[in-house]
Amino acid sequence: MDFEVVHQAPRIAARAGCLRTLRGEVETPAFMPVGTNATVRALTPEEVAETGAQMILANAFHLYLRPGPEIIARAGGLHAFMGWSGPILTDSGGYQVHSLAKTRTVDDEGVAFRSPIDGSLHRFTPEGVVDIQRQLGSDIVMPLDVCLGYPHDPGEDRAALEQTLRWAVRSREHHARSGTGALFGIVQGGFDPALRAEAARRTVALEFPGYALGGFSVGEPREVMQDAIAAVVAELPPERPRYVMGLGDAPGLLEAIARGIDLFDCALPTRVARTGVLLTRSGRINLRNARFRDDLSPPDPDCACRVCARTTRAYLRHLFAADEMLGPRLATYHNLAFMGTLLQEARSALRDDRYEHWMSRVLARYASRW
Amino acid sequence: MDFEVVHQAPRIAARAGCLRTLRGEVETPAFMPVGTNATVRALTPEEVAETGAQMILANAFHLYLRPGPEIIARAGGLHAFMGWSGPILTDSGGYQVHSLAKTRTVDDEGVAFRSPIDGSLHRFTPEGVVDIQRQLGSDIVMPLDVCLGYPHDPGEDRAALEQTLRWAVRSREHHARSGTGALFGIVQGGFDPALRAEAARRTVALEFPGYALGGFSVGEPREVMQDAIAAVVAELPPERPRYVMGLGDAPGLLEAIARGIDLFDCALPTRVARTGVLLTRSGRINLRNARFRDDLSPPDPDCACRVCARTTRAYLRHLFAADEMLGPRLATYHNLAFMGTLLQEARSALRDDRYEHWMSRVLARYASRW
Repeated sequence: MDFEVVHQAPRIAARAGCLRTLRGEVETPAFMPVGTNATVRALTPEEVAETGAQMILANAFHLYLRPGPEIIARAGGLHAFMGWSGPILTDSGGYQVHSLAKTRTVDDEGVAFRSPIDGSLHRFTPEGVVDIQRQLGSDIVMPLDVCLGYPHDPGEDRAALEQTLRWAVRSREHHARSGTGALFGIVQGGFDPALRAEAARRTVALEFPGYALGGFSVGEPREVMQDAIAAVVAELPPERPRYVMGLGDAPGLLEAIARGIDLFDCALPTRVARTGVLLTRSGRINLRNARFRDDLSPPDPDCACRVCARTTRAYLRHLFAADEMLGPRLATYHNLAFMGTLLQEARSALRDDRYEHWMSRVLARYASRW
Repeated sequence: MDFEVVHQAPRIAARAGCLRTLRGEVETPAFMPVGTNATVRALTPEEVAETGAQMILANAFHLYLRPGPEIIARAGGLHAFMGWSGPILTDSGGYQVHSLAKTRTVDDEGVAFRSPIDGSLHRFTPEGVVDIQRQLGSDIVMPLDVCLGYPHDPGEDRAALEQTLRWAVRSREHHARSGTGALFGIVQGGFDPALRAEAARRTVALEFPGYALGGFSVGEPREVMQDAIAAVVAELPPERPRYVMGLGDAPGLLEAIARGIDLFDCALPTRVARTGVLLTRSGRINLRNARFRDDLSPPDPDCACRVCARTTRAYLRHLFAADEMLGPRLATYHNLAFMGTLLQEARSALRDDRYEHWMSRVLARYASRW
């Protein structure tokens, strides 16, 4: 993997870049749709690519539990198994162990947890999750980390940070010996900018080819998040890609780009789609709302995607009212096309040195109905 | 609407034909996928056409209740509303009133029933359902009929038949004054071949442009169904299309083609797909079966559809195990492609005067794993 900053914005930390992997290039800033279970829910890989996605995210925790990394390895890796030929980033499962596993015990060696599927006992170690991601054939590999929610006791931050750093060292060593793909470092540290900056410095000292910012978008106020992001970015080497994990609401994402972030992933656009919520340039709309019963206009009049070209709000609303699978499917396609277009415009604005102006116009209109 | 028998098989009643409608031609025998709620579940209209479907079925009962025929009429009719430009046949709702409505009262005037959605009270009359189907813009219109299940008291057959015939007269008159599309006659009469033959003669006397055989595939043994179908066909004019409602399992359908049937619809291929069952040339397979965990062969090795070209049984099984929407979607696509190919081969065999030979080979292989 190789990363190049193609254009640096003049007054802000934002930049346009290019991430080159063996499976293709990713123009940044970029948004990665979430394909937890080796499928971006409801869509084919061809459709995901059509929406403008260049790289997707899958999840080592879920795929380890089901169908198991051996089956995926035998199929030729995740790319062959699911039919996506572009780059794939896999999350290590640190966050999922925290949020989904029934019981878990963290010690220095790793984390033991019970499967949310069948209650069986499992153990993740820094070395083990690197191995799982090698079996999956991930292009970008995430190390095991300790992830806290919000709010949490600030006293926990120090311990989580130290554990994450000790695991980062072991992950780095194990990956250097036997890993494939590019292993990113993950910066934790809660919401204290000073602690985040320390975490960033100590992670950078381990020299990773890219840096992820973990533990964000877990319920904290927007300014708290953006300040901590800025504190981390100030400590990161400009020539390496920066990735905020789990951030994908349009305003937060655009502000994080302004602060120098290159990569994003988030389940939000696809998750809300399944409940009938469309992302549009004038904010979210809920198709289940009765006012759309008779609305024969396109789902999002500003969107050029296939769904918006061929269908109406009234029809989509009918599909959701009748609990028809085509509703979530078409809404998911549109929401990913919305993200694809938004990021494409962001990259274009960056290259033309008009990012701040473009962003403030987009946010003013989006917030008007938010 | 216009129908032409293109080729009559030499020894059996089977024939190849062409049904011409204002929205395109349908080569017969043909299978119509079921799009009850103005959507063939999980698929786009483009995909439905790709599978080889030429005409689809929608349901006046369901669309009357939700979203309502006024909304569909305002959208420009069912074709524009759902984005399917080919011909559409709509069922009147006679069967659904029987099988789905919470309570119902049939009298000579029509049938009163409570909505299974919200319990509200509604009334269908022969004239009303012609009007609903005019609002929908159906190409082929079904009259209101009385449909019985199996087994039922043979004493009910006579009354149901007489009621269906009285309503057929009123439907015919009302449609002649104000209807659009082609109104078919429906032959009822239970499973007594003599009663079926009488129903056929009296329906034919009313002179419809096509004839449907209702009340089949409701649980009766295969020979009982096929004998009654043959008894009806013997009374129908050869120059009119014949349609068995609700029949779509491969063996029953192929045998009914041999007995002179031109059109079929059935929810089976799409309904079983959503439970993980694939139709293949060697019978049905259930993807939830553990033996497919590691099976990297195509879903159906004999199938050339997009799903079979691009994916594996192991991946489809994983999608069903993880309850991922893409599973039902891909299985639905394959099952309709299976039906599309089967019917295309049937038409080709008919034109080459080798239908019986082809059918016996297909059935021998299909039954081997059934």
